[in-house]
Amino acid sequence: MINRNPCIANIKAGYLFPEISRRRKEFAAAHPETAEHSHRIISLGVGNTTEPVLPHINAGLVEGARKLGTVEGYSGYQDEGLQSLREKISAVFYKGKFQADEIFISDGAKCDIGRLQLLFGAGVPVAVQDPSYPVYVDGSVLAGAAGAWTGTGYQGIVYLPCTAENNYFPDLSLLPEKSLFYFCSPNNPTGATATGVQLEALVKAALEKKVLIVFDAAYSEYIRDPALPKSIFDIDGAKRCAIEVNSFSKPAGFTGVRLGWTVVPKELKYSGGESVNADWARVCGTIFNGASNIAQAGGLAALDAEGLTEIRRLCDFYLGNAALIRESLEKLGISSITGGDNSPYIWARFPGRDSWDVFTEILEKCHVVTTPGSGFGPAGQSFIRFSAFGHRADVEEACARLERLKG
Amino acid sequence: MINRNPCIANIKAGYLFPEISRRRKEFAAAHPETAEHSHRIISLGVGNTTEPVLPHINAGLVEGARKLGTVEGYSGYQDEGLQSLREKISAVFYKGKFQADEIFISDGAKCDIGRLQLLFGAGVPVAVQDPSYPVYVDGSVLAGAAGAWTGTGYQGIVYLPCTAENNYFPDLSLLPEKSLFYFCSPNNPTGATATGVQLEALVKAALEKKVLIVFDAAYSEYIRDPALPKSIFDIDGAKRCAIEVNSFSKPAGFTGVRLGWTVVPKELKYSGGESVNADWARVCGTIFNGASNIAQAGGLAALDAEGLTEIRRLCDFYLGNAALIRESLEKLGISSITGGDNSPYIWARFPGRDSWDVFTEILEKCHVVTTPGSGFGPAGQSFIRFSAFGHRADVEEACARLERLKG
Repeated sequence: MINRNPCIANIKAGYLFPEISRRRKEFAAAHPETAEHSHRIISLGVGNTTEPVLPHINAGLVEGARKLGTVEGYSGYQDEGLQSLREKISAVFYKGKFQADEIFISDGAKCDIGRLQLLFGAGVPVAVQDPSYPVYVDGSVLAGAAGAWTGTGYQGIVYLPCTAENNYFPDLSLLPEKSLFYFCSPNNPTGATATGVQLEALVKAALEKKVLIVFDAAYSEYIRDPALPKSIFDIDGAKRCAIEVNSFSKPAGFTGVRLGWTVVPKELKYSGGESVNADWARVCGTIFNGASNIAQAGGLAALDAEGLTEIRRLCDFYLGNAALIRESLEKLGISSITGGDNSPYIWARFPGRDSWDVFTEILEKCHVVTTPGSGFGPAGQSFIRFSAFGHRADVEEACARLERLKG
Repeated sequence: MINRNPCIANIKAGYLFPEISRRRKEFAAAHPETAEHSHRIISLGVGNTTEPVLPHINAGLVEGARKLGTVEGYSGYQDEGLQSLREKISAVFYKGKFQADEIFISDGAKCDIGRLQLLFGAGVPVAVQDPSYPVYVDGSVLAGAAGAWTGTGYQGIVYLPCTAENNYFPDLSLLPEKSLFYFCSPNNPTGATATGVQLEALVKAALEKKVLIVFDAAYSEYIRDPALPKSIFDIDGAKRCAIEVNSFSKPAGFTGVRLGWTVVPKELKYSGGESVNADWARVCGTIFNGASNIAQAGGLAALDAEGLTEIRRLCDFYLGNAALIRESLEKLGISSITGGDNSPYIWARFPGRDSWDVFTEILEKCHVVTTPGSGFGPAGQSFIRFSAFGHRADVEEACARLERLKG
């Protein structure tokens, strides 16, 4: 038969979250008592939203669906997205500093990250924060921009460690020239949020080294400290070196609805002077057909005054969960904990231990699913990521059970 | 700055449909009289659905949206799709011959075609019917599996002419060994639908030549002749050499809703014996996050008895348009016309003329937008594709205006 893409052979068999799901199912099958409510398995693992879409935003979705059944309200292909939604995103998140055709509506940040690799191809050097969201690296391997697994990382990927020692901000002198640098703030998984001074240093380094930053701002609405920037475009010069991906998934509970956006400024050029924005329009026009028009109607509702209040309320709820989890971990005497304040993730260190061993211990002793830090990169070894997405009663129960890890 | 993917430089500047849209806008701007109803521009161009989603299916979408606002009805990530929808698709379209995990729910056939290239990489030979839907070729160029534009086609793509002379079915002896072959039936753009005998020959050739067929069945619900196969999997042996992509866009009017599926049989192996199904799950898990759960709720409604009746009714409506268009073209004395019976596209030949010139003549004389055949490949030169998607009154008006092309 036909030959396999050799790049696929490079990628490790299990994407992190399906692997966790597999282990969870295996554990449940071996422990029938988990079927009882008091012994149920509780997930603080994958960052999947759990709370209903709030009423005003939900009404927007329902109305978006309803009007497709009418002659005057019906719509077909939307391609790069509704003009009104593109304008609204520019106004709400970027003080109107982008034109509508610099904002591309997507079916989510992860999907656009997969497509973004096509702009640069297999020859581009790729750098990531270490630890980082697995899709940056796995997507690069699929695109041929990275090679074989070496046991701790992929050949050709430059891992920039982000640890307690450097306050979770990388040493930018390690950034390769003309590379693609994936940077996420508030960070998944560490929960660390970059300061304005840090992002200024990042933009300066990118401009000097001709680096293109893919800035993942999927958790920006969880920022509560007004001093912290929510967008790379809050920084002067970023329009010449950055693309920003963002999503309605985590702020509006749209993980299943599928809606996001990507900002590609017209100022952004390749080394040959060609427009990155024009290429992105071409890539999306060729292999994408736009986000669901129902999701887009919901997105419009999410960005009016009432919708923005609901977004704040929903993020506050999950931040409340995060505070509970963080508190329980502190009670256990874990000294190195980040996140949970301006981020729905808490990153906790279990010194000297293997992440998957800690994952297994927590699953066995507490029936709580977490995410092993080593799944996010070599510097994640010995860490566990706790996700604050969950019903309050589940989070409270999980926190109580975490006490079993003592001694 | 960063380097551009050299593959993007290979691709022609305008994807066909955005180019048509640009010319339409240019014409409208230069002809203010088109703002009047009687002189309005009518599109028989892009295959974009125009009729409201029918009531039962629409109720499924509305209910899918509504329940996201409730604690018990809320759902997040669905990944490869709702189990119930995967099972239903297998039952309705494939007589249950596939397991749920051989059917992957997507946000549309075009999007999955873009991702499918990742299974085979840049090294795979690519063959297409000529003419064909542009995404097969453009996606291959983006993936590096094809090279520069030569003036009539892309280097490295094997174009298999489908013309009146061979009854729109290609000479399979031209098919390269171990290639990826995109095959579409009912065909976009020619409207030709392959017979069982033809598809048996195709599967036989694929098995002999170790070719993987990507069978695009996006228009299968337009088939009215019971003797014509609706799926490549109606043919014995296809499970060992074919992937099928399909979509709710054209049968259920979901072009804006975004829902499709791809069948990847477990029997399908690469030359090294690895499972294509396992790789596809990995690719989707890595750079895709599933179709909207609202769209999936609509898809479930579309596949129960009432929904299937609505699908038939909607396709019949567009086939009614197709019959009107075909009749008008016959009245003009055009001798070579295909499609319009088991397909929503009509393919008409204007001997000795350039497709874009005919496009322009029809736009100028009739204020009707069509699609120039040369946009679908070298063998499309001198042809025009007429799309039957439109309101009945618009199609009738367009048909009346087509008489202006006489003499």
